[in-house]
Amino acid sequence: MVVYGTELKSRLLLGTAQYPSPTVLAEAIAASGAEVITVSLRREGPEGGAFRDLIAASGCRLLPNTAGCHSVTEAVTTARMARELFGTDWIKLEVIGHADTLQPDPFALVEAARILCAEGFEVFPYTTEDLILGEKLVEAGCRVLMPWGAPIGTGQGLRNIDGLRSMRAHFPDLPLVIDAGIGAPSQAAQAMELGFDAVLLNTAVAKALDPVGMARAFGRAVAAGRAAHEAGLMPRRDMAAASTPILGMAELG
Amino acid sequence: MVVYGTELKSRLLLGTAQYPSPTVLAEAIAASGAEVITVSLRREGPEGGAFRDLIAASGCRLLPNTAGCHSVTEAVTTARMARELFGTDWIKLEVIGHADTLQPDPFALVEAARILCAEGFEVFPYTTEDLILGEKLVEAGCRVLMPWGAPIGTGQGLRNIDGLRSMRAHFPDLPLVIDAGIGAPSQAAQAMELGFDAVLLNTAVAKALDPVGMARAFGRAVAAGRAAHEAGLMPRRDMAAASTPILGMAELG
Amino acid sequence: MVVYGTELKSRLLLGTAQYPSPTVLAEAIAASGAEVITVSLRREGPEGGAFRDLIAASGCRLLPNTAGCHSVTEAVTTARMARELFGTDWIKLEVIGHADTLQPDPFALVEAARILCAEGFEVFPYTTEDLILGEKLVEAGCRVLMPWGAPIGTGQGLRNIDGLRSMRAHFPDLPLVIDAGIGAPSQAAQAMELGFDAVLLNTAVAKALDPVGMARAFGRAVAAGRAAHEAGLMPRRDMAAASTPILGMAELG
Amino acid sequence: MVVYGTELKSRLLLGTAQYPSPTVLAEAIAASGAEVITVSLRREGPEGGAFRDLIAASGCRLLPNTAGCHSVTEAVTTARMARELFGTDWIKLEVIGHADTLQPDPFALVEAARILCAEGFEVFPYTTEDLILGEKLVEAGCRVLMPWGAPIGTGQGLRNIDGLRSMRAHFPDLPLVIDAGIGAPSQAAQAMELGFDAVLLNTAVAKALDPVGMARAFGRAVAAGRAAHEAGLMPRRDMAAASTPILGMAELG
Repeated sequence: MVVYGTELKSRLLLGTAQYPSPTVLAEAIAASGAEVITVSLRREGPEGGAFRDLIAASGCRLLPNTAGCHSVTEAVTTARMARELFGTDWIKLEVIGHADTLQPDPFALVEAARILCAEGFEVFPYTTEDLILGEKLVEAGCRVLMPWGAPIGTGQGLRNIDGLRSMRAHFPDLPLVIDAGIGAPSQAAQAMELGFDAVLLNTAVAKALDPVGMARAFGRAVAAGRAAHEAGLMPRRDMAAASTPILGMAELG
Repeated sequence: MVVYGTELKSRLLLGTAQYPSPTVLAEAIAASGAEVITVSLRREGPEGGAFRDLIAASGCRLLPNTAGCHSVTEAVTTARMARELFGTDWIKLEVIGHADTLQPDPFALVEAARILCAEGFEVFPYTTEDLILGEKLVEAGCRVLMPWGAPIGTGQGLRNIDGLRSMRAHFPDLPLVIDAGIGAPSQAAQAMELGFDAVLLNTAVAKALDPVGMARAFGRAVAAGRAAHEAGLMPRRDMAAASTPILGMAELG
Repeated sequence: MVVYGTELKSRLLLGTAQYPSPTVLAEAIAASGAEVITVSLRREGPEGGAFRDLIAASGCRLLPNTAGCHSVTEAVTTARMARELFGTDWIKLEVIGHADTLQPDPFALVEAARILCAEGFEVFPYTTEDLILGEKLVEAGCRVLMPWGAPIGTGQGLRNIDGLRSMRAHFPDLPLVIDAGIGAPSQAAQAMELGFDAVLLNTAVAKALDPVGMARAFGRAVAAGRAAHEAGLMPRRDMAAASTPILGMAELG
Repeated sequence: MVVYGTELKSRLLLGTAQYPSPTVLAEAIAASGAEVITVSLRREGPEGGAFRDLIAASGCRLLPNTAGCHSVTEAVTTARMARELFGTDWIKLEVIGHADTLQPDPFALVEAARILCAEGFEVFPYTTEDLILGEKLVEAGCRVLMPWGAPIGTGQGLRNIDGLRSMRAHFPDLPLVIDAGIGAPSQAAQAMELGFDAVLLNTAVAKALDPVGMARAFGRAVAAGRAAHEAGLMPRRDMAAASTPILGMAELG
């Protein structure tokens, strides 16, 4: 998988919030095999230094995000500060439209993407499965799209599978990353089997009873789903078909 | 996982029918990490010797099956021949009740299980999610149950999830192996996340475009699903919840 | 719909338990349009007389049931007493196998059906979607089957749609009535659209906030689903298709 | 249900395209009980006169649509012509964004809605379940929203139920009409049970084997779903609960 000219071997991207402790976070990152982790500006407070050291030690590439931003101005300002602070053009662009569902605001998202792309950012937009919204983001300069599976933190999995399938078909050559809503490794594997390029998640690992074990499970499941996509899944059938062909039972005399 | 006193590390059991070639079969077994493979009597024909060498080379434990048997007599006779031929008390007991769905015949299944258990067989019955049928099989002497996910060869996955969940709850300490109907690694992972002990499959690997790649994918997915079950999945939520808690955006002033 | 030689115009059969009051029950029966109602022996206690008057006033045909029976003996004894008390050969045969799921016991069910059919009862067996079990019941003499949609009282609707579809295909000419698990009129309509002949329910009406209004809703939904089945549903499509064909927009010049 | 000051008793709105003949259309309208039918400008060609007579005879209120419009200009021009031709301020606003899915273009839709509302139109926008898009349409002056159930003509039903449920909760007092994707009466009933105010459909009736019978079925199903919503559906349960409470079986002694 190549995004903005960078090749990634792991197709699991990991968030860094809500972990029980920095140690657990560091171990979870290692266990997941992730090469990219998302970070938010706000972690850079009084204890920011220790957090930054931990991140550096992980060897992962940083993808700063604009989590919690509800307007174009907030998101653009946050992105600029993140670029300065983290020294990267990558930005995961979130412009939240609604406090209950945390769904993206399609209108503000496109506007913010236009501004940031024009300023040389490499934008990873958190979006819906809306095809027209996706096209506008591509027109704005985005070279990857990150549609939600379900609202952030719900663990519902892929709640509009037909819509996501349409999206994959509509953008056959664009990297598409499922971002948000994944609650179980089986759901991550399903996303990969449908042909999505990667999965980004946070809560399902951070809030597991054993985050490190869960991180490892997700890493394996994403690899399994990708391998299955490449190996060519059998078609679903309506009628049963004997897996062991019967050649007559005469030998049972 | 311990069945009939044997500890198994891999929770994926693999069928051996329908592969494009013996070489592909051998490579798929190796890639899957399976420790148990099912074989049918019928493979022991003129070319049986080569097949048996291949199986021996795999290092796997054999689980002979009674695939294609439609009556108690056929199944019991086949089981006895299999014991003699393969030198094992293990038998995967299939008594097919209906040619279109290949569903087990609950009545004949219990009768055959009683006979075979009394003769010292260690029976792995292919069954439905019916709880009463399961109880009868346990009464007959079975120490493992293998409920279907969906009809054999359909790749529909777990088509009665609520029923399978009830079964898991009803037999908390008995090894339960999902057998039949699995079409994709995500489905195998889901079965493991629900707490099933293992997955047995054949068509989904044998009929993949690349069976070896798919075998590897299933091996990983089963391990991922089990690890997730042990690591404690997050609860599903109806409402969104920010994974990155917002502490105020004052710093963006 | 003809069962045991009786033609029924309404395809909704109604249970009579759990209503807030006899008056509400009477009004709900009237609003539903049901011609058949199920009754249990146990209602024939001290207040049985009033209940029987109410039933008589409804003009409905009675279908006594063996609810709560857990063994062949209990069920057969209850059926005999019901025949004497209610003066009908009709019996809804329930032999519960498991207290938590209230699923039928396939083995006891067939045995009880054999005994009762031999005694001239016209048996309506509460069964699962298992095809072999269905065949055994038909062999025993049953001329109608009543598979569950989901466990009694759950309101989950049709939880194994593929299995029920197989059952409809397997018994094309036999009256099949979905019995148990229906929680909403849309689910009853769906059962009818799939080609089932009728629906039997109780809790969804009795436990609604307004049982009379809900009874009317179910009556309409069952009729709608049947009419739709007869009118020939459109096939489901994967791709969108304009319902308003476009003939060129030149007129907008 | 009141939309733009007009009270409607029937909650089924019907399209008028794709019928086998004008006679069938007229009979289907009558059988459905619909009080509002949608018409497209283009039917007003050479044979427009006869069509208009048929519509007038139906006694239904007309809701002209902008079907097939792909841009703000097309949609606005079509709406203005429709107002002149049909003599009504009502307009069903469709601005198609994508030829394969026929999904609305969120951006053009809002822009067209703003223009038309400012010109005094009473706009019925065909939209997605996106909450922010819905808010923009309300800001533009729309007093009703018509979210899709699934892409036009697919008959998939409600393919993002969680999203539609969120929409209902987000706009508790606004009339919401499911428009597009409904293929069966059970799906229409389900939409009503979820609390939607009405359903608009076309293909499922026009393309049924018997459109008149299907129109009647949909009329009943919509009424049933609404009645169920008002009567208070029972909650879904995970565990079975006997509908016939057991008071002891001592009487069977």
